[in-house]
Amino acid sequence: MESFDQIRAIRWQDDALELLDQRRLPVEQIWLRLEGAADTARAITAMVVRGAPAIGITAAYGVVLAARHRYRQDSPRWREMLTGDLRQLAAARPTAVNLAWALERMQGVLDTLPEGQDPQQRLLAEAQSIHAEDVAANRRMGELGARLLDTPGAVLTHCNTGSLATGGYGTALGVIRAGVARGVIEQVYADETRPWLQGARLTAWELVQDQIPVTLLADAAAAHLLRQGRVRWVIVGADRIAANGDTANKIGTYALAVAARHHGVRLMVVAPTSTIDRSLASGAEIPLEQRGQEEVLTLGGQPVAAQGAGAWNPAFDITPAELIDAIVTERGVVERPDTAGLAALFG
Amino acid sequence: MESFDQIRAIRWQDDALELLDQRRLPVEQIWLRLEGAADTARAITAMVVRGAPAIGITAAYGVVLAARHRYRQDSPRWREMLTGDLRQLAAARPTAVNLAWALERMQGVLDTLPEGQDPQQRLLAEAQSIHAEDVAANRRMGELGARLLDTPGAVLTHCNTGSLATGGYGTALGVIRAGVARGVIEQVYADETRPWLQGARLTAWELVQDQIPVTLLADAAAAHLLRQGRVRWVIVGADRIAANGDTANKIGTYALAVAARHHGVRLMVVAPTSTIDRSLASGAEIPLEQRGQEEVLTLGGQPVAAQGAGAWNPAFDITPAELIDAIVTERGVVERPDTAGLAALFG
Repeated sequence: MESFDQIRAIRWQDDALELLDQRRLPVEQIWLRLEGAADTARAITAMVVRGAPAIGITAAYGVVLAARHRYRQDSPRWREMLTGDLRQLAAARPTAVNLAWALERMQGVLDTLPEGQDPQQRLLAEAQSIHAEDVAANRRMGELGARLLDTPGAVLTHCNTGSLATGGYGTALGVIRAGVARGVIEQVYADETRPWLQGARLTAWELVQDQIPVTLLADAAAAHLLRQGRVRWVIVGADRIAANGDTANKIGTYALAVAARHHGVRLMVVAPTSTIDRSLASGAEIPLEQRGQEEVLTLGGQPVAAQGAGAWNPAFDITPAELIDAIVTERGVVERPDTAGLAALFG
Repeated sequence: MESFDQIRAIRWQDDALELLDQRRLPVEQIWLRLEGAADTARAITAMVVRGAPAIGITAAYGVVLAARHRYRQDSPRWREMLTGDLRQLAAARPTAVNLAWALERMQGVLDTLPEGQDPQQRLLAEAQSIHAEDVAANRRMGELGARLLDTPGAVLTHCNTGSLATGGYGTALGVIRAGVARGVIEQVYADETRPWLQGARLTAWELVQDQIPVTLLADAAAAHLLRQGRVRWVIVGADRIAANGDTANKIGTYALAVAARHHGVRLMVVAPTSTIDRSLASGAEIPLEQRGQEEVLTLGGQPVAAQGAGAWNPAFDITPAELIDAIVTERGVVERPDTAGLAALFG
C-alpha cells in the first residue's frame, strides 16, 4: 500500500534547525537555517512554519538552539539566561497549545540535567523524540480516522494539516492520505483558505507532490458543495481543543461545521492529544489570535482592497463540540465528544 | 439626509456607451467606450460590468449600438442582421435573468418601430428609461429595506450590489445606503468575496467613495462573525429569483444563509422584480454559471495555487426560499417568500 508521504518541512541538519519556508510555497522551495531562539520565535510568528504540531516541534528544536547558545556563552549561568528565550518562544503565537506543551516537555528534561553538563545532546534527543512521536501519532490517527470513512466518497478539508503542518504525514491530511491509500476516498476537495491561502498554496502543493489529485474551491463555495451530496466527511485539524471538545482551528472551520451539520455531512477533527488543553473547560477560554488587517487588504504584497477600507482578521474560530462528530487522536477516537469522552483518553 | 450616492458606472455619452472598467478597480478608474454589440457582449462576459441589473442595462444600450450599426450598414435589411447581435448579447452570461428581461423590453420597442426609420432615437429612449427606472427602483427598495432594520446594529453584505452593479444606488447596498442615512446601521461588514474579490475591490471602493465606513473580512470568517451577535441582518442581492423565491446569487450567499439561520440572524434579498423569473418554478431550474479554474488558481494574474491542482469554480449558488426572511423589491416586500407571496407582487 502506497503511503503518499514524501514531504518533510522541519529537519535538524548539520547541527542546526532547518525549516522549509512556507511563505514561499508553492513558488519556490527554500530552506531557512536557524541558529537561535530569537530566529526560531520569529520564524513561528512570521509563519515560516505554521500548524499546531509543527509549531510545537519547531519550538522544541528552538530550545536546543537556545540552550546550546547560552551554555557556550556563559556555562555557569546558562539556565538563568535561558529563561528569557523560553518566554520568547512561548509568546511566538498564542492559539496553538502544542507550543506550550512542547516547551513543557523540554523543561522536564532541563529540570533533570546535571549541572555543568553541555545540555545539547539530551535536549536534542528529546526534540527528536517529540518529532518522531508526532509522525507516529499521525500515522496512527490516519489509520483510526480512515476506518471511520465507511462508504467511499469525497471529502473536504480546510487549511493545511499535512506534512507541512506537523512533523510529517499530517493530522487531517494524514487521515486523507490513509483514506486514499485504502481506496475509500474518491475525491479530495480543499478550501483555498483565505486570507493566507494555506489550502491553495500548501495543501495543494503537498498533495500534488504525493500524487493525490486535489480540487480547490473558494471557501465561500463549500456550503454549495456540501449541498450537492458528494462529500461524506469534512476533515480538519485543530490548534487547541478544550476539555469539553470545543475546538479552535483555522478561521472558516466553524462555517464548515455549521454547513456540514445543516447537510448531514459529518465533521472529523484530527489532532494529537498534545493539542488538547485540559486546563480550559470550554472554547470560550481559548485565546484567539487576531492578525493584521493587511492580510485581508493585500495579496502577495499587492493591495487588493480599496484604500480606506478596514478589515477584521481573526486567524482562528471556535467550533463547539456539539457540531463535531468525531475527534481522532493517537490514543483513540472520541465520537460525539464531550468532557467525559475526552477525559477517558487520559484515564 | 445625505444620500451617500456619488458613483455611476454606466453612461451614454457622445453617442456611445461608456463603462467604468470594474476589472481595474480599485487601482484605477478607466472608462471603456463601446460602439457595437460584439464589444458590449465581450464586456459583459469579461466582467468589465457585472451585477444583474447593470448587465441588463448594459445589454439594453448594446441593442442601441447594434441597431444603429446595422441600420447604417444596410437600412433595408437591418432588422434581420440584428438577430445575431441580439443572440450574442443574450448569451453573454447565463445566470442573471435581467439580461433576457432587458432584451425583451428592447425587442418590444423594436417590434413597434415603423419600417424605414432610424431606430436609434426610440431605442435609446427605452434604454435610458430602463436605466432610470432601475435607479428609481433601487431608491424605493432602499426605503423599503431600511424600514425592516428595526433595531440599530451591524449588517453584513456579500459581493457588490451597489452603484457598480446596477444603474446606480444599488440593491442590497441601496438598503445599506438608506439604513446608514437613517442611522439604523452602526457598522457595515463586507465579505471580500473570492474568487473575484468584488467585496474588497468594488464594495469597499464604492462605500469609501461615499464615506460609509466598511470592514472587510475573509468569506470564511462570516460564520464566526455572526456568532458574535453584533450582526442583525445579512443583506444580499440576487442574480435570478425563481417563482417560489429560491434565489441564485454570488457564490457564498448560500453559506451565509445557512450560517444566518443557525444564528437567528435574518437574511434580506434585495432585487428589482426584473430579477424574478416567474417561468422557473424553483431554484433547481436556474442555470448556474461555472467559470474558469484560473480564477481560483491565480490572483491578479499571479499563480497562487500549486501547479497540478484543479479547481471547482461555480460563480453562483442557490439559496432556498425557506432560508430567506424577506425579499425586497420595488413593488413591495415579501416576507417568508413563497410562490404565492411572489405572485402577489405581479397580481
